[in-house]
Amino acid sequence: MIKIALDAMGGDFGPSVTVKGALKALEQFSDITIQLFGDQNQIEKYLTGESRITIVHSDSVIDMGEQNPVRAIRNQRDSSMVMAMQSVKDGKNDAVVSAGATQALVVGAHLIIRRMEKMRRVALAPIIPSLDKRGKILLDVGANIELRPEHLLELAIYATVVAELYLKRDKPTVGLINIGVEEGKGREIDKQTFNYLKESKLINFFGNVESQEIFTTKCDILITDGFTGNIVLKTMEGTAKALGEMLKEEIGSSFGGKIGYLFMKKNLGRFAKRLDASEIGGTLIYGLNSPVIKAHGASNELAIFNAIRQARAFVEANIIEKVSEHLNQMPDFSEVGDDNK
Amino acid sequence: MIKIALDAMGGDFGPSVTVKGALKALEQFSDITIQLFGDQNQIEKYLTGESRITIVHSDSVIDMGEQNPVRAIRNQRDSSMVMAMQSVKDGKNDAVVSAGATQALVVGAHLIIRRMEKMRRVALAPIIPSLDKRGKILLDVGANIELRPEHLLELAIYATVVAELYLKRDKPTVGLINIGVEEGKGREIDKQTFNYLKESKLINFFGNVESQEIFTTKCDILITDGFTGNIVLKTMEGTAKALGEMLKEEIGSSFGGKIGYLFMKKNLGRFAKRLDASEIGGTLIYGLNSPVIKAHGASNELAIFNAIRQARAFVEANIIEKVSEHLNQMPDFSEVGDDNK
Repeated sequence: MIKIALDAMGGDFGPSVTVKGALKALEQFSDITIQLFGDQNQIEKYLTGESRITIVHSDSVIDMGEQNPVRAIRNQRDSSMVMAMQSVKDGKNDAVVSAGATQALVVGAHLIIRRMEKMRRVALAPIIPSLDKRGKILLDVGANIELRPEHLLELAIYATVVAELYLKRDKPTVGLINIGVEEGKGREIDKQTFNYLKESKLINFFGNVESQEIFTTKCDILITDGFTGNIVLKTMEGTAKALGEMLKEEIGSSFGGKIGYLFMKKNLGRFAKRLDASEIGGTLIYGLNSPVIKAHGASNELAIFNAIRQARAFVEANIIEKVSEHLNQMPDFSEVGDDNK
Repeated sequence: MIKIALDAMGGDFGPSVTVKGALKALEQFSDITIQLFGDQNQIEKYLTGESRITIVHSDSVIDMGEQNPVRAIRNQRDSSMVMAMQSVKDGKNDAVVSAGATQALVVGAHLIIRRMEKMRRVALAPIIPSLDKRGKILLDVGANIELRPEHLLELAIYATVVAELYLKRDKPTVGLINIGVEEGKGREIDKQTFNYLKESKLINFFGNVESQEIFTTKCDILITDGFTGNIVLKTMEGTAKALGEMLKEEIGSSFGGKIGYLFMKKNLGRFAKRLDASEIGGTLIYGLNSPVIKAHGASNELAIFNAIRQARAFVEANIIEKVSEHLNQMPDFSEVGDDNK
């Protein structure tokens, strides 16, 4: 059995969504158990007598808008998020899923679950949609504001293992997000990272990728620092949302548009579905001793289900152990210091 | 008369597009003259006897894919781009429009037209579409890979003048692109820039803006370093293009979709037009002694027309002199060095 800890209070909708997502996952996967962390009374309302689900009551919830995540994690040991992570640390569960505050989850995972010995940074690595419908990995989208080239290399190795074992790609390629395709483009960090990625035998380097190619590039993994990755992800989100609004405005602006809409309602629905984060699931936090999946704050039942599906797949594929094996083959960068906090 | 120098050989299509765009502009604006720089034989084919247009023959063209722009500008003094800029430097024309290689144009403008005394950096500042259809200024999208906070302040002052005089905004607001809205977010450069923008009496500071708000934020100007701005612009372009492709695929995938398309063809056309760069025009290069407009490499006739329209408006509004007046009121940052090259 794969044992998953779910922060039932996390996200904008709490147990009304998280518990239903959990029940859907139990139905689909006979090899998992789920432990729900949160307010027992609120959770029980949604349970319907399943045997593979248990509740651990928690007294507090870390606020979605938490501005001081370190303080929150230290002071709210009785919160659903902290207790869920602690259960993984204590070996009671194999992986955590939470739709709670992102930075609190990153900090909590650092402090409680801890980083893998060989990883000097963690990263937030969502799977983003692509024109070929296969999806690709984008990282780091915000766990680190600044990263050094050697951190990006470690994270590229991690992403390669995920792309192989989870996305089932054969020799997955890693692209470096940059402002030009030629070698030598970008900031100092980009140039040095280019060299590391090019030289490493542990990854299949694709080269620089300009950000207008994000949906269309053939490479499986797109890597950059956490500031840039966050900007890319949010620009994609904002553009998609604004274009959706513009399309709605233009369609609604004439009778012909409205009639046309009736004919292509299904087509537009499929179009929206291709961009819907709920269909893809959560964001894996790379670099930790156990899998931690961050589901989107606005997750619906399907998004929670998909995040649990991902957690199960990561445990089943033994991804963290495989990453360890790869990192042990990496040249030593110890001259730049192991700043494990 | 406002005298505009046009690099007739620049862009993917050369004189077949640039000359036609110029003729369109002459028709529309009775107060401009246009001097075309390029191959006389090629240009003459498209001329139809207008009196306010002249040709200056040039022997070479700077390649669109030029990888060493400094060398190109130094060695190709007989190129259409260099000769067009030299004519402005010599006082024969008031502004330059070119759809040629971006970095060559930026470097050439630096070396030939020179930076304004008070500006320590130039920047590429396009006007991007917005949901409210008014457009906003985004900068820097790639003239500088790295910028210092004081450079960003100077550029914000420049953009404020453009937003007032060209976009006709009353007390235009400046937003700093960042990974969170709260003060203290981002990298060191972002934190320091936030402080400068907040304290300056010469601009109306809006605060941090996350990039998912790029189409919807109420602020008139979005500022960041050239690496980040380039990534934002290209992610917007790539997302819009990919979404257009997905929409086409889904519409074409069923009979209902195709019928619906016939009804809403006009609506979809208007939607595409709202995102079309040709409708907006070129990218102004900020910080120079005369206006230089970079038209998109793939410019069509309309895009060239619009870039000429912009050049005329910048000269007419006397933007560079107004920026000078503002910069003279700015506190002195001379301790950080005037690195005019």
